[in-house]
Amino acid sequence: MTDTAKNQLELWAEEHHQDILQLRYRIRRTLFSEESEFQRIDIVETAGYGRMLFNDSIAMISERDEFIYHEMIAHPAMFVHPGVRRALVIGGGDGGTVRELLRHPTVEHVRLVEIDPMVLRGCREHIPQTAAALDDPRVEVTVGDGVAFVAETEERYDLVIVDSTDPIGPATPLFGKTFYANVANVLNDDGIVVSQAESCFYELDRQRSMMEILSTTFGRARIYNYVNLTYPGGLWSFTFASRAALCPLGDLSPSRIADSGLEFRYYSPEIHRAAFVLPQFQNDALQRWIGPD
Amino acid sequence: MTDTAKNQLELWAEEHHQDILQLRYRIRRTLFSEESEFQRIDIVETAGYGRMLFNDSIAMISERDEFIYHEMIAHPAMFVHPGVRRALVIGGGDGGTVRELLRHPTVEHVRLVEIDPMVLRGCREHIPQTAAALDDPRVEVTVGDGVAFVAETEERYDLVIVDSTDPIGPATPLFGKTFYANVANVLNDDGIVVSQAESCFYELDRQRSMMEILSTTFGRARIYNYVNLTYPGGLWSFTFASRAALCPLGDLSPSRIADSGLEFRYYSPEIHRAAFVLPQFQNDALQRWIGPD
Repeated sequence: MTDTAKNQLELWAEEHHQDILQLRYRIRRTLFSEESEFQRIDIVETAGYGRMLFNDSIAMISERDEFIYHEMIAHPAMFVHPGVRRALVIGGGDGGTVRELLRHPTVEHVRLVEIDPMVLRGCREHIPQTAAALDDPRVEVTVGDGVAFVAETEERYDLVIVDSTDPIGPATPLFGKTFYANVANVLNDDGIVVSQAESCFYELDRQRSMMEILSTTFGRARIYNYVNLTYPGGLWSFTFASRAALCPLGDLSPSRIADSGLEFRYYSPEIHRAAFVLPQFQNDALQRWIGPD
Repeated sequence: MTDTAKNQLELWAEEHHQDILQLRYRIRRTLFSEESEFQRIDIVETAGYGRMLFNDSIAMISERDEFIYHEMIAHPAMFVHPGVRRALVIGGGDGGTVRELLRHPTVEHVRLVEIDPMVLRGCREHIPQTAAALDDPRVEVTVGDGVAFVAETEERYDLVIVDSTDPIGPATPLFGKTFYANVANVLNDDGIVVSQAESCFYELDRQRSMMEILSTTFGRARIYNYVNLTYPGGLWSFTFASRAALCPLGDLSPSRIADSGLEFRYYSPEIHRAAFVLPQFQNDALQRWIGPD
């Protein structure tokens, strides 16, 4: 029996984007569907993308393409920083970012601060491809508000990754100025912060706002792009900022990537450099904060 | 009255992709809906993407993002070739590729060979943003089969652009070996051919096949990527091959782009280079035909 057998009910998971676009994924079954105090969480088995996690009906990850998002949020900073030992991930309860960080042997400790325990539970039960990493002994999972955590903690980190959802609902403060002032405080002197930064096609004003906040806080900010199969518009961004003004291009030694012995499916030394090349319209909009190489 | 007024009928144009994904665009009205001997052609006014052309319910262009596709299919070759005077566009009846070619003052003659006159008529009536270029005196529009045209013509060109739909229906022979043997014959000694080459996420086997055909025919083939807002998967490709083994990187003089005085919204010298950097999995799949820089 195929998916299109005549007497089989068609099931589709549907994401609405800005009231102008819908992305619909054929699904085989729903694995998890619950409402937390923060959001609705659905995990479905799709026909074409493996398992997918939706928060409030917005696709977070698919098993098919999550390698891109997670390689690109983790490895550029990991190969620019001289040796990350302690990392803090805010959000990212699916575990994919943690998984990629743990591939680096310098990493001794990763703290994940996820506001919604239901994301952790759903992913641990149904998306081990990413969530299994959360059981690594180097990982400490904190259920709590990342905004409050960076305001209060005495801990210091070499890398902070803001692996957030879109700036609606619980993630909104993660795009604000106060939050980044506190991120700067929890970073060691050569620390780096990388943040999920939306899409230049749909959220260029948000990218301007993030670059303004980051460059004010850290002196300089960069932004780089990657491609996502299951986010609307395809081209999405991460911001990059560091306390020591590390340059993601000038301070990258490509041989370090080769020497690491790590194998990647999307990332490479060449992709690292190319990711910082922005389409002209995005470059025009953000160049004032980026400055020259 | 907004689009979501309660008593307004919701209209959505729906593209089905491989039976696993649907892309739905909110539309305000249908401008053109006819069936030719080759395909169904719809032009709709969308709520978020301007006017969109669909062939057999597959999005071809949107006014919002067509600049990316058309800049990227035209300008890399135009700036690598020492001076294109005569260009042949096969397919591309919307006129966008022709529009970008005509921005180069070296261009004396562009022939567009479009198999379906209904595409030409629909776009001329409803998408002047691209189709107005077809009325330029340097352009000659031929209604006919591009496969037959390159097999029979005595004309020679500096650049051939295969601006095709997906390899289903009338476009299928445009992805074949015989076609490219004839393309080689209509190219001048330093001629270049650029072709629409699908997406590495969904059509990697097709990209392998195209690279095999092109490298057999031309000795070497390259492939480069661009991002599309309205094609599934976001990351799409064009192939690049030339009779004189012009290298799209080594034979590019970035100053020529700046000196041209042309302004672009997506393309730039940096994007030109970055576009040839492939995600690792795509690079692994295609490296045997690409070879070293």
